[in-house]
Formats: sequence, structure tokens, C-alpha cells
Amino acid sequence: MCIYLDNSATTKVLESAAKKAYDTMLLNYGNPSSLHSLGFKAEKIISEAREVFANIIKCESEEVYFTSGGTESNNTAIFGAVKAKKRLGNKIVTTAIEHPSVMECMKELEKEGYIVTYLKPDKSGNINKLDVINAIDKNTILVSMMSVNNETGAILPVDIVAPAIKKAQSPALFHVDNVQGFGKLNINVKKLGIDLLSASGHKLHAPKGIGGLYINKKAHIVPHSFGGGQEKGMRPGTESTPLIAAFCEALKNLPDANKELIRLKELNDYLRAELCTIEGLSVNSPVNNLPYILNFSTLKVRGETMLHYLESKGIYVSTGSACSKAKPSHVLSAMGLSNKHIETSLRVSFSRYTTKEELITLLDEINKGLSSLAHIK
Amino acid sequence: MCIYLDNSATTKVLESAAKKAYDTMLLNYGNPSSLHSLGFKAEKIISEAREVFANIIKCESEEVYFTSGGTESNNTAIFGAVKAKKRLGNKIVTTAIEHPSVMECMKELEKEGYIVTYLKPDKSGNINKLDVINAIDKNTILVSMMSVNNETGAILPVDIVAPAIKKAQSPALFHVDNVQGFGKLNINVKKLGIDLLSASGHKLHAPKGIGGLYINKKAHIVPHSFGGGQEKGMRPGTESTPLIAAFCEALKNLPDANKELIRLKELNDYLRAELCTIEGLSVNSPVNNLPYILNFSTLKVRGETMLHYLESKGIYVSTGSACSKAKPSHVLSAMGLSNKHIETSLRVSFSRYTTKEELITLLDEINKGLSSLAHIK
Repeated sequence: MCIYLDNSATTKVLESAAKKAYDTMLLNYGNPSSLHSLGFKAEKIISEAREVFANIIKCESEEVYFTSGGTESNNTAIFGAVKAKKRLGNKIVTTAIEHPSVMECMKELEKEGYIVTYLKPDKSGNINKLDVINAIDKNTILVSMMSVNNETGAILPVDIVAPAIKKAQSPALFHVDNVQGFGKLNINVKKLGIDLLSASGHKLHAPKGIGGLYINKKAHIVPHSFGGGQEKGMRPGTESTPLIAAFCEALKNLPDANKELIRLKELNDYLRAELCTIEGLSVNSPVNNLPYILNFSTLKVRGETMLHYLESKGIYVSTGSACSKAKPSHVLSAMGLSNKHIETSLRVSFSRYTTKEELITLLDEINKGLSSLAHIK
Repeated sequence: MCIYLDNSATTKVLESAAKKAYDTMLLNYGNPSSLHSLGFKAEKIISEAREVFANIIKCESEEVYFTSGGTESNNTAIFGAVKAKKRLGNKIVTTAIEHPSVMECMKELEKEGYIVTYLKPDKSGNINKLDVINAIDKNTILVSMMSVNNETGAILPVDIVAPAIKKAQSPALFHVDNVQGFGKLNINVKKLGIDLLSASGHKLHAPKGIGGLYINKKAHIVPHSFGGGQEKGMRPGTESTPLIAAFCEALKNLPDANKELIRLKELNDYLRAELCTIEGLSVNSPVNNLPYILNFSTLKVRGETMLHYLESKGIYVSTGSACSKAKPSHVLSAMGLSNKHIETSLRVSFSRYTTKEELITLLDEINKGLSSLAHIK
């Protein structure tokens, strides 16, 4: 038995997407920059994928750049924006619950003298809209905010950022780390005034090693790496056509985002309600979060202990972000939760394949685990 | 018919390597950072690949880092070394025939105030050893030199760099862009005193999108991108386990490098000798170059015209580096060749699958092409 409920860490690749990668490796292996027909044929893979990606966030295909993943997209967007705007100010606004690939860039920029505001969430995990509005001023050159938190599923108020930038007469570019929301939460970058948006393939059944970055054609950011002219010089290096082909295939086969949200909200609500009947258990995800994620603390058994217990039953969950392996969660910490909450937390994350039957088994095993495992004092 | 002689641009993926990627996507899809067994199983892919990679250049496996390709490896090495050593000097030594992913980094560093010496090759395409020795001094913080030039196959004197650094009492780190030499030319990084070495998968029958970087554990370079703790924080982001598995498989199946060199030298010598019987044709590759590459100028027909003529016969070659698409070659230019040489140049690049029969067909078609195509005045 394998009940995989760690889909915010990574997903199983869609079979037809894996097949596309395989076929591209063997049958369409030209270098997209080559002048002959094998190059041209490879280039077509990229241009098709660009259109498919663009359609999801409603931008133009020429505004889409392929990268090696969410981390590279975030690094490229953040450093590129700050370098482009450095003469106009020295302030950056972000949140205290960003992914390490945003947080660590911010710490680097602080070393270079930039002043970074990390907006704290409330106890429920939500970022307050007014806090965002008040933090942006004329010296703000970048606002970087995730669409969906990767640990709690909290949906952040990305809709109010562009109006706030405008109102503050700020020169800021607006970056959204959309790794957890891409293909799941409908985002129209033009309507929301987003300048930069990061996405990752492996969170939605494409392989690990491919990501995308939307760059508004009016936002002239500075490249973060240098080399050949690929991706208009913004992301040099021979393009990974096999992974781009697989990414494209996975995107083309996404279920309708809104229908999935309804289906998963039912599952999430069910799990939440059932968990709440367990004595002492505390749900950490805010209500109305993205229903792909549910974070809770048993307050009785260490997260890692419960993770391994569930694993022994063929159920795979996580204690938090895989990218923060073994570190205590900075997200739950920023929410003001106690050490006990943090130490006993678990994250369950769903995919299009998650069923109610799987959650029933999960609940059953959590209950059994709580009974049999040593209690924390 | 398909005679693929553009292997320095990219190669066809080995079937068993493509299969490894496919299987990893579907059967071993865990996030290597996950704490459960699916994560552990994925992590094993990476540690095996690290050992296989390390064995090729005779370093320790903990000194191997996986990247998205040669360009990322070069950027990480160059910026990381310069940032780590910036207090010790402001000079960099490289050559005028490096790949764009080195050259463009150097241009960036020049903008930041570093003084870069670009050593010119002689007319045959070789870099003079004494020039290298004389260029390095106490203020040199980085020497970056490719092992093999990607356009001519010239083998560069990487063996004299570490002694020259030592003799000059220079604090310089030594980086080798080994993208064209990796797995083809035996390099022992410890014996040669190399601190940083870049490699790419797709030049030796692994997929595009995966590369490696050797970092001497005594060379404490600064990361170029920031995020989770993957690759000891030197290269954050979820590792592309499918491509790492494929890279590992391709490396495990490499033919014996020295035996291949002997076989390909025979082929290269044959092609060179036959080309030299064509009136007016001039070979641009130095003698004793890496026999995987032969560069020549017909002096009669534009390179691109001949490329398309050959393509119509099912033969795929290039006019130079795919990464310098449509730009005149900076390598041939640095060699002091005339515009006519540059405009009429072609690069033929071999692989383990290249046969003499293919070269006989190539020669036949070059001769036919020269007879039928319009002549340059």
C-alpha cells in the first residue's frame, strides 16, 4: 500500500509527461540553438511549452522563461529586480513565511545593505492586508510574496499588492512565488499587476529540474547568470528540452483548477473536521486555505515519530517543508505557535489523485499511532 | 539517413540513460530531502551518481555538486571564486577562446572593476604556456581555462596552471571548464591542482538540463544562488533526480576514454587528410587537438549554406558553437583568421557512434556541395 500525501514536497510524474521526456531524449535530441532542422524541431518543443505556460497565468508567451525550478526562478526574479531598481530605493517588502529560496535571497540582500521588511502572519497563518499596504513606500523597490504558503496552505493577499504599490507611488516590482499555487489557484498576472511569477514543474506532476519564470515585458530585470543567448539571455544554457516537453504535457493535462478546488475543499474539510475530534489536536492551517494542504499538531507525539509510524503503514506525509529538512518550521514559529506545536506538527498535502478512502485510512492510522506511541510531556 | 556530426552541440541520449530518467519519474519520485523512505530512496540516486562522477576526475564524492548544466556550473564557479577571494586581489586570467558562459561572466566582472586578461591563441588555435605563466601574479584571484575548445578541439595547457599559480605566490583558485573534455580526456583534478571543474551531461549522451561541478573541499567558494540546504547549500533547489539518474547511467556506460581517443584520432586524421586534398580548403583545428572535433573553412561556400546543403542530405554539422547562434566565431577571430575563413567555416563533431563510413559520405557530399553551390568572391 502507498498513500502518498506529501504532494507539496513533490509529486509523482504523470505517465504521459514521463513518456514525453523519454521520447524527446531519444527522438528529438537536437540542440534548440542549432541551425539545422534537428535544432528547429527541438526549438518547437520550447515554443509550444511557452504558450501552454502563458495560458495558465494569462501572460504572453514571450514573457515566459524556463529555469531549472522554483529556486532558480525565485533567485532570478529577486536579484534581477533589485539590481534593476537599485538606484530608486533600498527597501524590500516580503513576508516572514516565504520559502527558503526567497528568505535566503533576502538575507543576502540585507548583507548588501538593503532593508527588508518581513511581514508576520497572524496566529491563524494569514498575512494582514493593511500590514502589506502600510509597509510599501516610495523607497520600496521590490515586493515579494508567495501566493500560497507551502506549509499551511495559507492564501496570501497578492491581489492588494499592485494597487498598494501604485498608491504609494513606489517604483517597486512585484514578484509572486507561485510554486504552490501554479495550476491550482487561478492567477491572472495582468489583472493582478504581477511583474514576476515563479513556478515549478515537480509540484504538479512534471519532473524535478524544470521551472518557469514569468517576466512582465515592461519589467527590465537584470540577468542572474550569463552565457549564450538562450531565453533571450535571461537564462543562458542549453534548454532542457526533455523536461520542458514533460512540463508542457503535465500542464496540458491539468484538471480544471476550480473544479479541483471544490473537490479538494470537501476532502480537506472532512480531514479537518475529523482531526478536530481528536483530543488535544490542533489544526494550524487557516480556514479557507488552499485545500491542497492541511497542517496540524498532535501535541502528543513528535512530528518525525508520527511520520515514521505512518510510513511504516505505507502513508507518506511530512513534518513541514522538505527544503527545510530537519530545521524547526520558521512558518509556524512566525505564527507564534509554541515549540510543542512546532515539534508535533505534520503536513498532509494532496494531489488530484487523493481520495477520501486514503484520508479515512490516514485518520485511522493517526488515531492508532497516537494510542501506541510514547507521549510528549 | 541521419548522420549526426554535431555532437559538440549536444548528443543523443543513451537509451538506458533515458530509461533511468523515465523509471525515476514514475517509480522513485520522492523528494530527496523528505524524511520518509521515498526521500531516502531518491537520495540514494544522488549519492551513487556523485561517486560515479567523482571517479571520472579522481576527486572525492563529497566534492561533487549537481547543477542544471555547464552554464550554471561555470557561473557558480566563477562568481563563487571571485567573491570568496575578492579581498586578496582584483585580477583574473582566462583565454580569448572560452565558451560564452565563461566569457559573459568575465564581462560582468569587468563591469564590477576586475581586471581580466584574455590570453589569445596562436594562429593554430593553441594557447601558449609561457603566456599563461606570465599572466599570473600575486593579485590574480582566479584562473579560468577550458580543457578543450568547443569550436576547434584545441587542448589547452591546464597542466601548467597550478604550478604557475604556486610559483607566482598567487591566491588564485583554478577553474577548468571541462564541458568538452569530461569523460573524453582523462583529467585528475588532484594531480593537476584544479579547484573547480565544470561538466555537462548532454555532451556525453545524458539529457540536457544536468551538469556537475567539482569544488575542491579546500576551496571555500561563495554560493551563487540561495535557498534550501540541498547540495550543502551550494546549489539549493530540489535535485533533478531523474536527470541525475540518467547522468549517472551515461557516465557508467562511457567507453574507455583512451581507447576512444585512439579510434577517433584515426577518424579525425582521415577526415583531415581527405579535406586537405580539396582545393583551397583550410583546416582550422590545431594538430593533436581532441579528435572529437574538426573545424575547417571551405573558403568558397558560406558555412550556413553548406550546413543546409548537408542537412538536405541527412548530414548534421554546425557552423560553430550552438550557444553563439548566428554570431561570427570569437574563437576563429581570436586566432586571427580572416573574415572569409570565419564565414565559410564548419565544425564537424564526433561521438562514440561515429564511423568511417559516415565520414566518407560526408566528404562525398562536401565535394558535391562545393561543386554545385554558388562561390563566394
